[in-house]
Amino acid sequence: MPRYRVAVHIVPRQGILDPQGKAVRDALHTLGFGSVVDAHVGRHLVLDVDAASDAEATAAVRTMCDKLLANPVTEDYEIAGVQAA
Amino acid sequence: MPRYRVAVHIVPRQGILDPQGKAVRDALHTLGFGSVVDAHVGRHLVLDVDAASDAEATAAVRTMCDKLLANPVTEDYEIAGVQAA
Repeated sequence: MPRYRVAVHIVPRQGILDPQGKAVRDALHTLGFGSVVDAHVGRHLVLDVDAASDAEATAAVRTMCDKLLANPVTEDYEIAGVQAA
Repeated sequence: MPRYRVAVHIVPRQGILDPQGKAVRDALHTLGFGSVVDAHVGRHLVLDVDAASDAEATAAVRTMCDKLLANPVTEDYEIAGVQAA
């Protein structure tokens, strides 16, 4: 069965407090990077999945995000890319 | 000055232990997703930066990664995308 590498971005939902992003922005300001207006921190997951097609691999990863990887209350996820591995 | 949104991926360096990725893989196996062969967990940062051009915004973010955002011993980073914000 072919193998696919699926990349996922999991980010704090818009409007939800993002303390890690705020910490990054403040730290960058302290270091002199005043040009940074805003910062958001999320997770970047790369999953190697055995599947019959890239569509099936994507569907499987969406199910994983719904069931485990993303917090449905506070986080959004998007499939960032799928490629044959 | 125009504003750019720069996305960065910060991932554990190849060959370095990735305990978070291993935990994700094991948890997915426990939940029945046996098709997942491997998992890697990194960070996905989105920075809104004021800069004269997208090249300048990218250069600024590279400096930030070198100085603060990525651990040069254990992590690699790549600029995933730049767009006008």
